[in-house]
Amino acid sequence: MMDLKQEMKERCAYIEAALEKSVPEQKEFPPVIFEAMRYSLLAGGKRLRPMMVLAACEAVGGKKEDALPFACALEMIHTYSLIHDDLPAMDNDDYRRGRLTNHKVFGEDMAILAGDGLLHHAMETMADACLKNPTPQTTGAMKAIAHGAGIFGMLTGQVVDVHFEGKPLDKETLDFIHLHKTAAMIRGALESGAIIGGADKETAEQFGLAGEKIGVAFQILDDILDVTSTMEELGKPIHSDEKNHKTTYVTLYGIEKSREIAAKLSEEAMDIWKKQGDSCAFLAALTEYLTTRTY
Amino acid sequence: MMDLKQEMKERCAYIEAALEKSVPEQKEFPPVIFEAMRYSLLAGGKRLRPMMVLAACEAVGGKKEDALPFACALEMIHTYSLIHDDLPAMDNDDYRRGRLTNHKVFGEDMAILAGDGLLHHAMETMADACLKNPTPQTTGAMKAIAHGAGIFGMLTGQVVDVHFEGKPLDKETLDFIHLHKTAAMIRGALESGAIIGGADKETAEQFGLAGEKIGVAFQILDDILDVTSTMEELGKPIHSDEKNHKTTYVTLYGIEKSREIAAKLSEEAMDIWKKQGDSCAFLAALTEYLTTRTY
Repeated sequence: MMDLKQEMKERCAYIEAALEKSVPEQKEFPPVIFEAMRYSLLAGGKRLRPMMVLAACEAVGGKKEDALPFACALEMIHTYSLIHDDLPAMDNDDYRRGRLTNHKVFGEDMAILAGDGLLHHAMETMADACLKNPTPQTTGAMKAIAHGAGIFGMLTGQVVDVHFEGKPLDKETLDFIHLHKTAAMIRGALESGAIIGGADKETAEQFGLAGEKIGVAFQILDDILDVTSTMEELGKPIHSDEKNHKTTYVTLYGIEKSREIAAKLSEEAMDIWKKQGDSCAFLAALTEYLTTRTY
Repeated sequence: MMDLKQEMKERCAYIEAALEKSVPEQKEFPPVIFEAMRYSLLAGGKRLRPMMVLAACEAVGGKKEDALPFACALEMIHTYSLIHDDLPAMDNDDYRRGRLTNHKVFGEDMAILAGDGLLHHAMETMADACLKNPTPQTTGAMKAIAHGAGIFGMLTGQVVDVHFEGKPLDKETLDFIHLHKTAAMIRGALESGAIIGGADKETAEQFGLAGEKIGVAFQILDDILDVTSTMEELGKPIHSDEKNHKTTYVTLYGIEKSREIAAKLSEEAMDIWKKQGDSCAFLAALTEYLTTRTY
């Protein structure tokens, strides 16, 4: 049987080493921007999204080395989105992953620029990988990530979230936010990994679909954990949704019904992995873990 | 003889039409982000940077249609950088091109997101063009633009500019800022255009070098015009550098010496165009115009 924790730890270490090298320490000026970017990029975390890129690539028979620049780029984009989300003009959060947020350490101007810098560097990292090997696989992976992150993906989810801040949401709007703000990037991770690994169009689409279901289930669980967990367990303030008068799955459906919806989405994703066969064993285990976690 | 004004007007109209289509109007939610992006992207301006991408492509024998997505992406990146530069946490400017700045109209949160959105969409637009035609030319053009804009280009220039705000600069630091904040993107424009048009490595590098010289000369002239022009002519507040206690070419060298340095850089760029031959006539005329303009 797979030791998932150990497996995740090893995969995480592989990604950490790549991220560490991805944004260089800079002794000449301006060191501050590199410091600020590295502060948030190397703040730990489970590295789930880049892990998915690599795992999807390997699951379809590709080499993880080929997927690594795209995995790093995706984590840079994820990190930039957190830095900008935390800004005073947005969620105005002081803590993230148990540490002070970027603008609390480097100031608001540098935090905006550090976020911008990570998005820029994600673009350059992927462009580099595509130039070294200009194929439908590399450019397709870049497109999947850019699309998942962009104005028809994650960014739009964040816009709607900010737009309705403090106002009650209907179910349709909440689903739109979860689908875009969280799930679009997880879709992008699994889809891009499959593409770079050489999957055909239909298979890559199935990986993306699984990602979408995992992403929404993951976000519903986040809503639940905000109510049921402790600050120590989560590494960030709890009950923040309630404090911000946020409509969540919990406020719309209650805890039990929310758990049921998440479980159904998780099963649908698991069905996709089962159909794909044994090569998706790690992705299946990861899916089960992500959609049933209790902290 | 070339009617430069007329030539620029026609080329500008071609770019405007493409930009107009590049970020769609959106009737479904969230329209606000599309509105905010379009507000700044379609605010007019001379479209010099995308014009350079197209002109460089044609100068080496390429088709401007192939360069168009990269030209639009570059203008999106330029526009995003202006939106973020104007933010209260940065330069805190109320006017840009004679209109209210993005955050004055849409609020600080939406302005941050509109800037992010334009950078995202530049990435997606280029990724799309690369995927449709995965070649060393498309991926090379994307790389040149991403590098010019990124953490070793424009972004770093902005960081140093913000970092030293209100403090006196030495000549070396001021050159670093001009070279990165302004010239790196103009280098990227001419280099990417040449690459997409099929130029060999050496030629593309020459185009890039000309861009760098034009960029620095252009910025020196900007410093001069801030002192010698009127608000009506510039479409933005004048004497802003003095008000912000900014070190500029004018404060370090005086107006006449600054003009001389700009003229020398301009000549060096013109030499490159002359060596390339007749196909660079428009680029030569544009260079002369940009580095001798009086408003």
